[in-house]
Amino acid sequence: MKRKVSVIGAGGWGCALACVLCDNGHDVALWSALQEEVRLLDENRENKAKLPGVRLADSILITDDLPSACKDRDLLVFAVPSVFIRSTAKSASPWVREGQVIVSVAKGIEENTLNTMTDIIKEEIPWADVAVLSGPSHAEEVGRRMPTTVVAGARSDATARFVQDIFMNDVFRVYASQDMIGIELGGALKNIIALAAGVVDGLGLGDNTKAALMTRGIAEITRLGQAAGGCQETFAGLSGIGDLIVTCTSRHSRNHNAGELIGKGYTAQQAMDEVKMVVEGVYSARAAKKLAKKYGVTMPIVDEVNAVLFEGKSAPDAMNDLLRRERKGEFG
Amino acid sequence: MKRKVSVIGAGGWGCALACVLCDNGHDVALWSALQEEVRLLDENRENKAKLPGVRLADSILITDDLPSACKDRDLLVFAVPSVFIRSTAKSASPWVREGQVIVSVAKGIEENTLNTMTDIIKEEIPWADVAVLSGPSHAEEVGRRMPTTVVAGARSDATARFVQDIFMNDVFRVYASQDMIGIELGGALKNIIALAAGVVDGLGLGDNTKAALMTRGIAEITRLGQAAGGCQETFAGLSGIGDLIVTCTSRHSRNHNAGELIGKGYTAQQAMDEVKMVVEGVYSARAAKKLAKKYGVTMPIVDEVNAVLFEGKSAPDAMNDLLRRERKGEFG
Repeated sequence: MKRKVSVIGAGGWGCALACVLCDNGHDVALWSALQEEVRLLDENRENKAKLPGVRLADSILITDDLPSACKDRDLLVFAVPSVFIRSTAKSASPWVREGQVIVSVAKGIEENTLNTMTDIIKEEIPWADVAVLSGPSHAEEVGRRMPTTVVAGARSDATARFVQDIFMNDVFRVYASQDMIGIELGGALKNIIALAAGVVDGLGLGDNTKAALMTRGIAEITRLGQAAGGCQETFAGLSGIGDLIVTCTSRHSRNHNAGELIGKGYTAQQAMDEVKMVVEGVYSARAAKKLAKKYGVTMPIVDEVNAVLFEGKSAPDAMNDLLRRERKGEFG
Repeated sequence: MKRKVSVIGAGGWGCALACVLCDNGHDVALWSALQEEVRLLDENRENKAKLPGVRLADSILITDDLPSACKDRDLLVFAVPSVFIRSTAKSASPWVREGQVIVSVAKGIEENTLNTMTDIIKEEIPWADVAVLSGPSHAEEVGRRMPTTVVAGARSDATARFVQDIFMNDVFRVYASQDMIGIELGGALKNIIALAAGVVDGLGLGDNTKAALMTRGIAEITRLGQAAGGCQETFAGLSGIGDLIVTCTSRHSRNHNAGELIGKGYTAQQAMDEVKMVVEGVYSARAAKKLAKKYGVTMPIVDEVNAVLFEGKSAPDAMNDLLRRERKGEFG
């Protein structure tokens, strides 16, 4: 069934999802806050900076007009970086109708409130029906129609299936779930582990070390996530370990790449400057530490990432402290 | 405390573990069945074919004499390929004392009996105290003293800790566990998933697809492993998802490399010939299918790998059938 859909945010992920939705025959608008970006996207039919080589079909309406992008739509996809989710939701709210389905594809935790992205949207637009879409899905590959599998989460099964139906096609497979908090925490926290995995690579430590780090990473994410009300199986699934794997091992990941530079001796700020795009893990690290404290959960990797990012600890020292923990049972 | 230890099997993993044990100050013997291999190892102090660039210290005794390698040792490490575990155990049995601790580091399932490696050793040498050592641990990196973390499993906590004590050092970290069946099934079954992950790479399908496959892979391993008596947390740990990650993503993995060739159009036999070393996943695939049937568990990836390896199904057809499964809940 043909739907009217808007993608709010025209970065790499927004552009890739606009392509998926357009492939599925929907009427798609793609919004950016930046007039110059809209001009370039419309002129080039490609986001040359953030998703080079992926053509935006002519039928995709590119606009910087938020009211028209939000009004009379069956679905809004919020694809701005996590730090802009609140301001974007606030700006959009006057044009969002009662019961409007909004899917967040941003991944992060707001530091001062410890809110997830859908919490924030719900605060700013309480009358919206908020959902989330997450999983191992590099925009570069989705844009090239490489087979990808993700999870659509919503409080109600009906909304999850509505989102599933709109996105699902032969190369973009969507499962439905009702564990929103599990999906969102997995998506946000994995960026911090990816930063640490990048540090491992930057220090030249090898695949064995990285796999051990990733294994402990998903364990600490699961501990926190369950304490916060998520389901254990969600963290073992696509939006948990699946997303963690792709983010930690792929050359496409900004979090990983920033970590790699830090492992090579860059400061956090230098690494972010070099990677150029938003490094979500840097923003989420402090929030994760606060969440761990709130729920009384130990998160050694999150602690060490914070120490490196914000307390001047050297990457080799942090890695040594992680590796040489006392001898105990693996899950003790 | 200095121990007398023998490593039975001088392939890449046997040599790397001999180095770890030697680093720890133990009296180490390294046994190979092949006279010519023993001559070369002794002459070169390096396994140039299987672990190039890693020096075997002069204090490591290299021998083809099984009786002397097995007698009066505190620990025997069985490091032969899984298909040789039974014959090696049978040959060694006359020289193994009552209560001898034997650690299996081979990974596989015997096809006709569905026994794990420690089951086989226990059958052949019922008076031995059998243990297992497993985790994300490429020999190439262990040989280079890159930080690695593994799990030592035994029925009794005392034996697990005995093995842990002998292997543990600053760069080779060992956790103790009592879930032997969980550790062994994780280690054996992950090779099949790595073959499939290699096929994904060979077909050029990208990181999103591979992460989805790995996520579903650990899910089906966990289903089978729990049905067989393993603990869920073991599959979420180093010897489960950790080993799966390293085997699926690393350029060192033979299973992955064989799968990659199959994805590029080689037959299973051609791929094994090209990779040259034993591809454990090929041997384990049929056994895993039988185990799945025995325990009434669905293992779609194992089924498709069997179809490609033994029933002439094309790799693209198998991958399509995996990707386009019907729309249902992720864990449904």
